[in-house]
Amino acid sequence: MRYEELTIEGRNAVLEAFRAGKTIDKLFVLDGCQDGPVRTILREAKKKDCIVNFVKKERLDQMSETGKHQGVIAYSAAYEYGTIDDMFKIAEEKGEPPFIIFLDNIEDPHNLGSIIRTANQAGAHGVVIPKRRAVGLTATVAKASAGAINYTPVAKVTNLVKTMEELKDRGMWFVCGDMDGESMYSLDLTGPIGVVIGNEGDGVSRLVKEKCDFVASIPMFGDIDSLNASVAMGILSYEIVRQRINKR
Amino acid sequence: MRYEELTIEGRNAVLEAFRAGKTIDKLFVLDGCQDGPVRTILREAKKKDCIVNFVKKERLDQMSETGKHQGVIAYSAAYEYGTIDDMFKIAEEKGEPPFIIFLDNIEDPHNLGSIIRTANQAGAHGVVIPKRRAVGLTATVAKASAGAINYTPVAKVTNLVKTMEELKDRGMWFVCGDMDGESMYSLDLTGPIGVVIGNEGDGVSRLVKEKCDFVASIPMFGDIDSLNASVAMGILSYEIVRQRINKR
Repeated sequence: MRYEELTIEGRNAVLEAFRAGKTIDKLFVLDGCQDGPVRTILREAKKKDCIVNFVKKERLDQMSETGKHQGVIAYSAAYEYGTIDDMFKIAEEKGEPPFIIFLDNIEDPHNLGSIIRTANQAGAHGVVIPKRRAVGLTATVAKASAGAINYTPVAKVTNLVKTMEELKDRGMWFVCGDMDGESMYSLDLTGPIGVVIGNEGDGVSRLVKEKCDFVASIPMFGDIDSLNASVAMGILSYEIVRQRINKR
Repeated sequence: MRYEELTIEGRNAVLEAFRAGKTIDKLFVLDGCQDGPVRTILREAKKKDCIVNFVKKERLDQMSETGKHQGVIAYSAAYEYGTIDDMFKIAEEKGEPPFIIFLDNIEDPHNLGSIIRTANQAGAHGVVIPKRRAVGLTATVAKASAGAINYTPVAKVTNLVKTMEELKDRGMWFVCGDMDGESMYSLDLTGPIGVVIGNEGDGVSRLVKEKCDFVASIPMFGDIDSLNASVAMGILSYEIVRQRINKR
């Protein structure tokens, strides 16, 4: 397990953190702010015996990493990274074949947050990121995840290729999104699966791609090169959702 | 037709603008920058007889709206808004039923750009935005669109509901994404279709929703409320792509 200090910003993100049972060390609220969402947050804080500090806007602006605190900032003890075993356990409890997202060096925190959000909604059991190079679980990531970071485990691994090898021994199949692959609509993606999404600029790296059982392409009819990484992840993940629903 | 002045920032965006045949009034390049992508841009500029100014980093930072110019900023004469008739014409030329994205007050320029990018790749014939409230075609939008703004027409309309009524008379069907709808996998979305995507916070507005023939839901299995607007647009648009491919 690894811990990183985290500032949670914005009303939805803070409320979701309370509701998910996160330990909030300190809560900062804009002085005089009394609207519905803020009152709900204050109620949650009271329930959890959390210290509330009413502060001026300048103070919040100074504390804010994202510049979008919406009058509410919380200091969480930490976000806890999960493990791949956690993800297998969740899948087993739900009686579903494992469905895990692997990110090959996503660098944009908005993309990482959005991917965690989509993973949660698509029913994926977790997100795996490499320790080096990739963005970690910052406040911007947490906000872009719209609270999903509280529910969907994110694991950090030293070597993505080695982890993939180990998981293949445990019965997982890997598919990566890449333009030179087969159409995703013609692949059977219903088994225990790891979905690999490449870096924003360079796509999936060669060694990772070589480990993949399938290379899936999203049909593209446009004049430009590619899709946004988090949109591509959503489209590919929901093709898996569709196939799994159909199979039931 | 409407014009707005536009600053194009970043290597891909500037290069795409040249390649799409846009008139670039002035090009600003970081002094001493000589790598491959920049040389390609300079070659394009020479071909088009475009004035190149080599400037210091401070100057580029000052000119930049997005803070991510990557050493290259171009001033385009303007982005030209398209019309819905343009979109119908493109569809007709391709022999496809019209496939148009309607945005009900998208406020985030990254979302708008990403949606234009996905619309281009999914083979949609255009994007329609309302004149009021919504974000326009800024430099941030152009960059997030990864150049797609040069190919996919974007039309501005005064009243989205009235435009939808007119297009229904011309044979179009409308589907909006909303959680209380029918599963998108069980709807027939292969005809001439307008896809309505709601505002990031509030979803699709009531009057617009009432005009829709279908309300489609994306199945969600998560613990949070919704998907990112541009991801939801991608998932719904690609379900249309899948159904159209299947029908052929």
